[in-house]
Amino acid sequence: MQPVMDRGDLEAFMRAEFPQMAARFSVREVRPYGITVTMRAGEADLRPGGTVSGPAMFALADCAFYLATLAMIGPKALTVTTSLAIDFMRKPGPGDMRAEARILKLGRSLSVGDVMLYSEGMEPPVAHANVTYSIPPRG
Amino acid sequence: MQPVMDRGDLEAFMRAEFPQMAARFSVREVRPYGITVTMRAGEADLRPGGTVSGPAMFALADCAFYLATLAMIGPKALTVTTSLAIDFMRKPGPGDMRAEARILKLGRSLSVGDVMLYSEGMEPPVAHANVTYSIPPRG
Amino acid sequence: MQPVMDRGDLEAFMRAEFPQMAARFSVREVRPYGITVTMRAGEADLRPGGTVSGPAMFALADCAFYLATLAMIGPKALTVTTSLAIDFMRKPGPGDMRAEARILKLGRSLSVGDVMLYSEGMEPPVAHANVTYSIPPRG
Amino acid sequence: MQPVMDRGDLEAFMRAEFPQMAARFSVREVRPYGITVTMRAGEADLRPGGTVSGPAMFALADCAFYLATLAMIGPKALTVTTSLAIDFMRKPGPGDMRAEARILKLGRSLSVGDVMLYSEGMEPPVAHANVTYSIPPRG
Repeated sequence: MQPVMDRGDLEAFMRAEFPQMAARFSVREVRPYGITVTMRAGEADLRPGGTVSGPAMFALADCAFYLATLAMIGPKALTVTTSLAIDFMRKPGPGDMRAEARILKLGRSLSVGDVMLYSEGMEPPVAHANVTYSIPPRG
Repeated sequence: MQPVMDRGDLEAFMRAEFPQMAARFSVREVRPYGITVTMRAGEADLRPGGTVSGPAMFALADCAFYLATLAMIGPKALTVTTSLAIDFMRKPGPGDMRAEARILKLGRSLSVGDVMLYSEGMEPPVAHANVTYSIPPRG
Repeated sequence: MQPVMDRGDLEAFMRAEFPQMAARFSVREVRPYGITVTMRAGEADLRPGGTVSGPAMFALADCAFYLATLAMIGPKALTVTTSLAIDFMRKPGPGDMRAEARILKLGRSLSVGDVMLYSEGMEPPVAHANVTYSIPPRG
Repeated sequence: MQPVMDRGDLEAFMRAEFPQMAARFSVREVRPYGITVTMRAGEADLRPGGTVSGPAMFALADCAFYLATLAMIGPKALTVTTSLAIDFMRKPGPGDMRAEARILKLGRSLSVGDVMLYSEGMEPPVAHANVTYSIPPRG
């Protein structure tokens, strides 16, 4: 199955529906069942010591998996997070972050998968999240 | 075991170390192995439709469990989130939120527990999180 | 909302559908949105040192939440585990274990809640699980 | 960093320490920070309809991550599961199962990673688990 929305479609959707998100997140690549999204870490995302905060990493993982799902099913804004479990493994640097999301199962009512988070300039991942989204019924 | 920091100690700690957090979160009650924290939902925390965003709920759960742990072990700022798994169950309203955190196990190196999140004016919980914090070694 | 199946109904259901489970698990109490289930730890459930194994604790948590859900919605055998996240906090003893399950949200398609596990003769909980079950559509 | 135990070492360790596990699980490949383990599904692992049970899949994921960790750190039997979160995505068939475990972070006191579970003869994964193990202090 191929994506039904591409980078341009997803970014236009974010600007229209979630302008706050559109200013922080950029779609880099859309693949079947997968996406790459980057986040510009702003002042509000940093903790003392210059590390990106947990809530900012949560926001990036959540946004990336949402967009990966919409890319496959189309612009259903009511698709919502059911659960998100994140393991924090390394302290990110103060720079931009990159999320690699993949969908492991796309069913009629649930999209299940995971997201690996990377900090610019560090090779090993800094966090890993398992995510489930609920897809609204058709009709 | 009794808490070693009370409401005033925790709020002073937040103001000194995390001024951004101190402006959003208030400690309401400190108990042995438990705490009540509230969050004033600001513009940046709301999604279209007037509901509090997932990252804002994550931030509240994370902050509440952090403070519950510090209340028992003292002001060790380097105590960090190891993992946080959150189930979103109901859409919160646009108002303030309340977190009830409890520590289920306080070991030498890990603090493990959960947090129930409530939306002002709704009785059933809107989200539930399992949280693990890593405690820095003494010395 | 009151349970639609009581202790006797649930145990008869287990004997008919899952005889292996019926031999290990006993329903102690059925409440609205909650249940108490005990497990007799057999030889196969023990690890060296006489502690109950992780998979046996998983089985107890899973079974307890399944029965808590069926008690509320009736005997729909096709209700299946979607996700289960368990934190192991203390080493249980070699004896029987008790699960206290509670449903935090019972929707049309998902049942979400948690389970606390206790080891006979120990007061603090030994493990805590967050569980989501998928409920088959009606009709 | 290279593994310090190979297939033969791990299987000998299981036979000596966990003979019940050694009869069900086989190590297929050991890689740096990763392992492939298979499980022979026996009568006790099957549910009505001929599908492998949740607890059996939990046991496989748990065992695979344990062995992946020991392969890197050596035979420390007291390494124990701290948390395991499993998403069940598809119904497995009645045959053997395969686990692909990878370590995402190997710290001094925690080993964190995930495990993908496959059912013989099915291409997409049937379950995905995030796992954290606690490593005993040296000395």
